[in-house]
Amino acid sequence: MNNNKKIENKTTILESIITPEDLRKLSVTELPKLCEEIRQFLIHTLAKTPGHFASSMGAVEIAVALHYVFNTPYDRIVWDVGHQAYPHKILTGRRSKFNTLRKKGGISGFPNPKESEYDAFVAGHASNSISAALGMALASSINNDNIRRNVVAVIGDASISGGLAFEGLNNASVNKNNLLIILNDNDMAIDNNVGALNDYMANLTTSATYNNLRFKLYKLLKKAGIVTEGGKHRIQRFNNSLKSLLSNQQNIFEGLNIRYFGPFDGHDVGKLVKVLNDIKDMEGPRILHLRTKKGKGYIPAEKSPTIWHAPGQFNPETGEIKSAASDSLQPIKYQDVAGHSIVELADSNDKIVGITAAMASGTSLCYMIDKYPERTFDVGISEGHAVTFAAGLAKEGLRPYCCIYSTFLQRAYDNIVHDVALQNLPVVFCIDRGGLVGDDGATHQGTLDLAYLRTIPNMVISAPYDEHYLRNLLFTAQWSDGPISIRYPRGKGKIADWQNVPQKLVIGRGRKLSYGNDIAILSLGTIGQNTSNAVKILKSEGIECTHYDMIFLKPIDETILEEVANNYSTVVTIEEGTVNGGLGSAVMEWINDKGYSVRVVRLGIPDRFINHATVEQQQKECGIDPDSIVETIKAIIKS
Amino acid sequence: MNNNKKIENKTTILESIITPEDLRKLSVTELPKLCEEIRQFLIHTLAKTPGHFASSMGAVEIAVALHYVFNTPYDRIVWDVGHQAYPHKILTGRRSKFNTLRKKGGISGFPNPKESEYDAFVAGHASNSISAALGMALASSINNDNIRRNVVAVIGDASISGGLAFEGLNNASVNKNNLLIILNDNDMAIDNNVGALNDYMANLTTSATYNNLRFKLYKLLKKAGIVTEGGKHRIQRFNNSLKSLLSNQQNIFEGLNIRYFGPFDGHDVGKLVKVLNDIKDMEGPRILHLRTKKGKGYIPAEKSPTIWHAPGQFNPETGEIKSAASDSLQPIKYQDVAGHSIVELADSNDKIVGITAAMASGTSLCYMIDKYPERTFDVGISEGHAVTFAAGLAKEGLRPYCCIYSTFLQRAYDNIVHDVALQNLPVVFCIDRGGLVGDDGATHQGTLDLAYLRTIPNMVISAPYDEHYLRNLLFTAQWSDGPISIRYPRGKGKIADWQNVPQKLVIGRGRKLSYGNDIAILSLGTIGQNTSNAVKILKSEGIECTHYDMIFLKPIDETILEEVANNYSTVVTIEEGTVNGGLGSAVMEWINDKGYSVRVVRLGIPDRFINHATVEQQQKECGIDPDSIVETIKAIIKS
Repeated sequence: MNNNKKIENKTTILESIITPEDLRKLSVTELPKLCEEIRQFLIHTLAKTPGHFASSMGAVEIAVALHYVFNTPYDRIVWDVGHQAYPHKILTGRRSKFNTLRKKGGISGFPNPKESEYDAFVAGHASNSISAALGMALASSINNDNIRRNVVAVIGDASISGGLAFEGLNNASVNKNNLLIILNDNDMAIDNNVGALNDYMANLTTSATYNNLRFKLYKLLKKAGIVTEGGKHRIQRFNNSLKSLLSNQQNIFEGLNIRYFGPFDGHDVGKLVKVLNDIKDMEGPRILHLRTKKGKGYIPAEKSPTIWHAPGQFNPETGEIKSAASDSLQPIKYQDVAGHSIVELADSNDKIVGITAAMASGTSLCYMIDKYPERTFDVGISEGHAVTFAAGLAKEGLRPYCCIYSTFLQRAYDNIVHDVALQNLPVVFCIDRGGLVGDDGATHQGTLDLAYLRTIPNMVISAPYDEHYLRNLLFTAQWSDGPISIRYPRGKGKIADWQNVPQKLVIGRGRKLSYGNDIAILSLGTIGQNTSNAVKILKSEGIECTHYDMIFLKPIDETILEEVANNYSTVVTIEEGTVNGGLGSAVMEWINDKGYSVRVVRLGIPDRFINHATVEQQQKECGIDPDSIVETIKAIIKS
Repeated sequence: MNNNKKIENKTTILESIITPEDLRKLSVTELPKLCEEIRQFLIHTLAKTPGHFASSMGAVEIAVALHYVFNTPYDRIVWDVGHQAYPHKILTGRRSKFNTLRKKGGISGFPNPKESEYDAFVAGHASNSISAALGMALASSINNDNIRRNVVAVIGDASISGGLAFEGLNNASVNKNNLLIILNDNDMAIDNNVGALNDYMANLTTSATYNNLRFKLYKLLKKAGIVTEGGKHRIQRFNNSLKSLLSNQQNIFEGLNIRYFGPFDGHDVGKLVKVLNDIKDMEGPRILHLRTKKGKGYIPAEKSPTIWHAPGQFNPETGEIKSAASDSLQPIKYQDVAGHSIVELADSNDKIVGITAAMASGTSLCYMIDKYPERTFDVGISEGHAVTFAAGLAKEGLRPYCCIYSTFLQRAYDNIVHDVALQNLPVVFCIDRGGLVGDDGATHQGTLDLAYLRTIPNMVISAPYDEHYLRNLLFTAQWSDGPISIRYPRGKGKIADWQNVPQKLVIGRGRKLSYGNDIAILSLGTIGQNTSNAVKILKSEGIECTHYDMIFLKPIDETILEEVANNYSTVVTIEEGTVNGGLGSAVMEWINDKGYSVRVVRLGIPDRFINHATVEQQQKECGIDPDSIVETIKAIIKS
């Protein structure tokens, strides 16, 4: 009670801000108070309505300063990965709806131009901001905008390690443009950052110290005849040790012809306003490097930013995260089943190595990192590299388990085709968050993988029905002759006793779960559990279904298909993936190719993007929740 | 005659080399002569057997020195893009087969581990070498190889601008490894290089000059109080002008913790051997920067390296390229039809902009660059950036025509999904070299595009029957409400009078080309011409076919499908793309969903990689040449 009152008193400035126009009426001296109010708002709202907490806490001053200095929405702010964009959303007319965050019909967790004119571009996948903003900046000059339009890309230090960001940086200075890149450097992805660029940026902050040394050392070396002006072309064996001393005057960004400013304290809002005003009207691409703290202003989050990346509900006063009681007999996340199982496999097979791309805790490959650090690689945000790197490891006889979210694996489609499948290399793709992902929404759905993987020759595609089959598939994959993908959903399973003794499966062989005369149903993956529930309901209503769990999409089990084609006039396929080219299509193709005449009813994700909601709501929307499946099958049987 | 004799006399060293073991028996002083012999061999072989000429001429010394110094195949050489790898192939047992280059059953134009144990990794798509080689280098330590295994990646200065290469570089120093990266810097992609990194590397060579200036200027500025040790954190407005003077001591690679050596003359084989011996046993990742000349040793190619990238047959004595007579009434390449047509469209629509990714001459977007340089962007090897950048341009109301080869567009799958389709932005994808590509072989086939694009919501997918329809589609695309792809093949068309007045098509509407009672055929794209030929042959044999040119794969023409489903028991679909998920699947899905019972026979590319041969041979292999289509249809009708 007391606390609520405090908050009410504090929110007077924030409450006056409906759009950035209101913000721009404030004096600079009021901004720190506003920032504090936004933080309190974030803490107290996200405590009840879960979302991405720590990143947004770190970007409060950036959002305030940008909207204060720039003329949004005429000027464009392109956020890279929406995690950091909540303060921006709060300042641009969506504060009152913040309790609907990531809920069905509510506001999205990521910037979305359909939601607000202040959201200049979509931002669910990392590293796209520079390329998109560069396009927007050049469009302004091609369009001959009468008033200069500023375009700002705000990119985190983790996102900037993605190849796409580098491609953008490499092109930023080629054509005349006024792009401003804000590097929001909190030295963290979801997990700790990796990669040389990250080390490099850490060094940039200490340049003053090194800079002094640089000149003294150079003179010394020159005097000693070790380095000479004419001898630059010799191999300089001392170069590496000298490097850390020499590395700070000129930086990578300036090497790419982008004017560099910083680093500055990204939490000093007054200074940010001043700096932005100083540089906003300069010509040409610029990068402003800001040091921020993930979770800033909330001690528990500052201390454990990985846990507080997206903590779920919590007690704002105590910082206690409301997690389900940890009971060893409770079902655990599919991620944890995969993570623990890979470690088990690695215990007895020393050829197994683990790879992820900035998703070590998300995919639970962190367990493998803990136990076998020398056999596990978190390569940072760089899915393409992760896959080609895995191909290199596989080429030399190792067995890489490459753990990437389905939606991000889209980044590596060509690497799978060209670097893995073409050479038939035995990379194991552990495709996490396959299917509908719930509150992350449209940008993060893992619904295209089954269909796009099916276009690729040599690729084995599988999806487990439950935790036990996930373990069976992970176990089986170590003997695959070529690439194999195992696709499983986000979140908790249903089996408390998940630690079965894994069983070696026959690749391309499914299994029968129930038998009945009325209709045949083929399902793939955990959506088979909805199917099983539907089959039970149907049975209680007197409809008898034969239900096969296909386990493999490719190669598909032809014995099952033959059995079905010979015995049923209609077969229903159920998958949690796009109906364009997935299981349903594969079944239909086989039936047609073999000359059977069987009607195939395909249930799955329709050919459109599915917005944020709970997974159950999304399944219902797509007609693959148990009730919808029941209705569909009853309608088929009636017809 | 005289000339042939000269060559015979000259090839004595080269003839003694069957494997690199033989090479390593030579003295260093014999190597320049060997290099000259390899060049003569390349000139005289490629004059008759067309291939990638200029890049390989520039990499002779690198190949010789690497195999001389390293213990191949135990040590691994990973070539980035096979263009440069012919000398390597010549030295590793394939000299005698070089007249079969890129021919059916002959040696591949790119490194291919299935062809030789000396080809450590596949290399058709740029920028993959560092990631793959890093995997191989780390595998060596995980495998506990008793003898140190050196892994060398040889990457061109164009390939290194790809995001994948950057991701590899960014990870190269994270784990202990002995990767050696050779930067083969000829300052050229197929076209001139673009991007800041390229400028940067050009600067590296002149560091000695600038280095001297740097210190003088710094002192001057310091004396003048403009720069102070304590004032490093101020905004340094002079920084940009100072940059070019300061930029050469520390370089980008060292910023990424990779020890840098160079630049050296990549054509001084003796020096290369010495340098490689000096650095080969050093610990940790290293980069060796070599300056080379594309086309080196053959004056016409040195002068015009773009033309001589892959010149076709030529006269080795005169340098005359044997091109077809240029008759204005001859059919031209689809590329040129597209290139000229885009310029025409841009003439009357100032919102049209052009984008390519290091394929300006390949896609003929060069015509647009010539006429509208400020509205055309060649972003270098960075397909992902090209697409996201196009999305940014489209977001601001422009109409980007994004010209990328089908096989390379695979790199941008996620950019199409997340940055374009999700926001339904009207980017026009001009997908070049769709379908079978002939002698470039498996790495370059454009056969997956139709199927993978069909998984993406909002995407319109089209393919023209001929040059006129290519122009019609390019014309129509300027009014598309969302993303639209137009996919056409590599090489010459058949219509001399290709400049029709373009016609606005109805999106999603196909057309009927012939009518007959016996069977219905649906084709998509230029493979429809093979189909038309087959229909003519069938007609002469008394079989009457209805043939529809679908034009659009998505949205598919439901009027045609309904007509077909109502009137025929069998429909044949013909596409030059994978049968897993393409036109055939789309037709089948519609027919099943609507409850029709029609047999669909799908002709297209089978689910495997198709090796190099002529396009006609590849079509025959896939059963989509006119004769095979005739046979298939006759068999269907008989059955």
